[in-house]
Amino acid sequence: MERRSGPVLGRGYMIKDEEQNLLVIGAPEHNADAYHLSGFLAPDPVICLRVAGKTYLAVSSLEYGRAEKEAPVDRLLSHDELEIMRLARKLKSGAKAYAAAVTNLLDELGALNSPLVVPADFGVVYADELRARGVTLTPNGKVFDGLRRAKTEEEISHIQKTQEAVETACAHAVRILEEAEIREKGTLEWRGETLTSERLRGEIDVELLRRGCAADGTIVAGGPQGADPHERGHGPLKAGESIIVDIFPVDLSTRYYSDMTRTFVKGEPKDGLQEMYDAVLESQEAALSMVKAGVNGKDIHNKVAEVLHAAGYKTNVHDQEEGKPLTEGFFHGTGHGVGLEIHEAPRVSLAEDKLIPGDVISVEPGVYDPDVGGVRIEDLVVVTEDGCRNLTSFPKRFVI
Amino acid sequence: MERRSGPVLGRGYMIKDEEQNLLVIGAPEHNADAYHLSGFLAPDPVICLRVAGKTYLAVSSLEYGRAEKEAPVDRLLSHDELEIMRLARKLKSGAKAYAAAVTNLLDELGALNSPLVVPADFGVVYADELRARGVTLTPNGKVFDGLRRAKTEEEISHIQKTQEAVETACAHAVRILEEAEIREKGTLEWRGETLTSERLRGEIDVELLRRGCAADGTIVAGGPQGADPHERGHGPLKAGESIIVDIFPVDLSTRYYSDMTRTFVKGEPKDGLQEMYDAVLESQEAALSMVKAGVNGKDIHNKVAEVLHAAGYKTNVHDQEEGKPLTEGFFHGTGHGVGLEIHEAPRVSLAEDKLIPGDVISVEPGVYDPDVGGVRIEDLVVVTEDGCRNLTSFPKRFVI
Repeated sequence: MERRSGPVLGRGYMIKDEEQNLLVIGAPEHNADAYHLSGFLAPDPVICLRVAGKTYLAVSSLEYGRAEKEAPVDRLLSHDELEIMRLARKLKSGAKAYAAAVTNLLDELGALNSPLVVPADFGVVYADELRARGVTLTPNGKVFDGLRRAKTEEEISHIQKTQEAVETACAHAVRILEEAEIREKGTLEWRGETLTSERLRGEIDVELLRRGCAADGTIVAGGPQGADPHERGHGPLKAGESIIVDIFPVDLSTRYYSDMTRTFVKGEPKDGLQEMYDAVLESQEAALSMVKAGVNGKDIHNKVAEVLHAAGYKTNVHDQEEGKPLTEGFFHGTGHGVGLEIHEAPRVSLAEDKLIPGDVISVEPGVYDPDVGGVRIEDLVVVTEDGCRNLTSFPKRFVI
Repeated sequence: MERRSGPVLGRGYMIKDEEQNLLVIGAPEHNADAYHLSGFLAPDPVICLRVAGKTYLAVSSLEYGRAEKEAPVDRLLSHDELEIMRLARKLKSGAKAYAAAVTNLLDELGALNSPLVVPADFGVVYADELRARGVTLTPNGKVFDGLRRAKTEEEISHIQKTQEAVETACAHAVRILEEAEIREKGTLEWRGETLTSERLRGEIDVELLRRGCAADGTIVAGGPQGADPHERGHGPLKAGESIIVDIFPVDLSTRYYSDMTRTFVKGEPKDGLQEMYDAVLESQEAALSMVKAGVNGKDIHNKVAEVLHAAGYKTNVHDQEEGKPLTEGFFHGTGHGVGLEIHEAPRVSLAEDKLIPGDVISVEPGVYDPDVGGVRIEDLVVVTEDGCRNLTSFPKRFVI
């Protein structure tokens, strides 16, 4: 899935710094920083603190037993031990209770006067209560992004597992397109009924679910719909038109995402689509050959734009005007990090962002024409010292 | 799905107050307050402001066209109009750019000096930047909870639609249990293979997905597993044991949840399970008969506890000791609000929380024995002036 517009400028990330004290409060199932810092997956809020390089995790009493077995932290505490329920009753506020509990723990650890880095989306109500108790909080999302960037082998194997589900589901979609018959008016028929975006997406999503992965937004966009970045696809698919299939589910047990896009056409490609496909594929191959640790994402993006520009398409490097977003050609980033979130650091885009070993990034150039449709081809790769390892093995076949 | 432990004390909610100025920044698909305040569903961050009773929404240029058609706001702006990209380049920070854009807009509206209420989970990085620009921010989750409590008829119809998918999926599960055969050792066989929690959950979740609903955590917990609030269920299901089936998906198009639990037993119930079931059902009926606007959730919870206590079970009203959570009997809340989040205001629990017309709440007493299993029965109802309307029509049949 392509990274959409957003104002945050990438400017290089702070490297893992064991000296910084960190705090996250959140439910690990929905808060990637809480999960990553604690190593413990839970549906309820936890407090996770790193002080002087040691990790402290406080979980509800219901989760304590499992956390004892599973959480790879230096010290495990329960909410009871921190007296959160008693504090909540006394202070008549859950946020005040959490803040008081964190303050007490920091005091015990002799870290009350050290600054504490929190994620950018750290809840303001906790921040206010902690600051009112004298704690110095510094929001810095990049510190947490940095911690999550260089994936371990275990994390990569989780992403690989999600990717396997993606490829199985995509193979199922290809089989359906193969089996589909072209009707006189160009619509497709499969098993006696019209093949629509909705139906093909449903088939993909059910395949994913059977492998423990949940999709939220699988794109099956045919014809001009493929050129609209916010269109997930609807209505009958047609022969000769491009069909963008972008699959980016999360594995419900590991919570790691994967991300892959293929573009297909049933029958003879219309309106210069084959040329579009060839150019996008060439630009992707150029990008993939450049990926390695130390390379700036911006240079990769520029290379993609150069190839596409040479092929005659507009790009956001060559043709974008201030305040007037491009709506044809190549108008999105080349790629983004993938892990516990579908879009995470680094970016491979107009912004400066140097790759590091263990980054898992998508490489997904695309070209779009609002009157015709779009082509996007996306692989997921692990950045290594001397290149990259492609986690995607799905063939790049256009015509079906 | 029962509401798990958490420290926030319910203490009555502020009623909708058109005079308070409000701000939310977030992606409506993942931020219920942003979706509810703007009425516009989008995957990317939006800025939503209510000033002097009028609603202002700023969306990315990619979404502007759709927002013009769909967003029921008083004034629609684009990120371009607010110059967010330019500000981000100038200030070298996305958060600073958003804060500057909001400040400029407040200035234009003459509201720069009025306090602005934000949700409790409003990102600290935005809060810091806005305050640095002189804006007075007051985090108050209850204001936003209050706005979302009284559901409109349209919202109720969305929840009802999700509930219909839940009931279809649950009916499918019942059919499978009916068709399953009991093997000699008490395990169940369906279509030639062992019927496990995982398999039954998979069948339920696929049914939900076919109706556009995504499940994340459907509970199919047999025997003693049913007594562990953090167990979603695994391994072979067995005859004579209780099977708790708790289904709480979100509709991917409307983003409204529903929530229903039924407990089944295949064959003859063992170990006093029938008595447990009868008591839970009686307590639920008592609770349902009490639900109406103006009633305190705590009184409903106490009534449930009274019925279960009289039937000989421990309850968190009668038997809970300080700092020692109950692990058998009735140890969770009676219910919780359901809407754009699976757990939202109000609570029907130990905490004081008065019901208002339009509240959609679950009513889900349960009794658990760690050695035997559990029984939970959950319906979803709309609170009305003189009672409630039950959105659940699924039969309460125990033995299959």
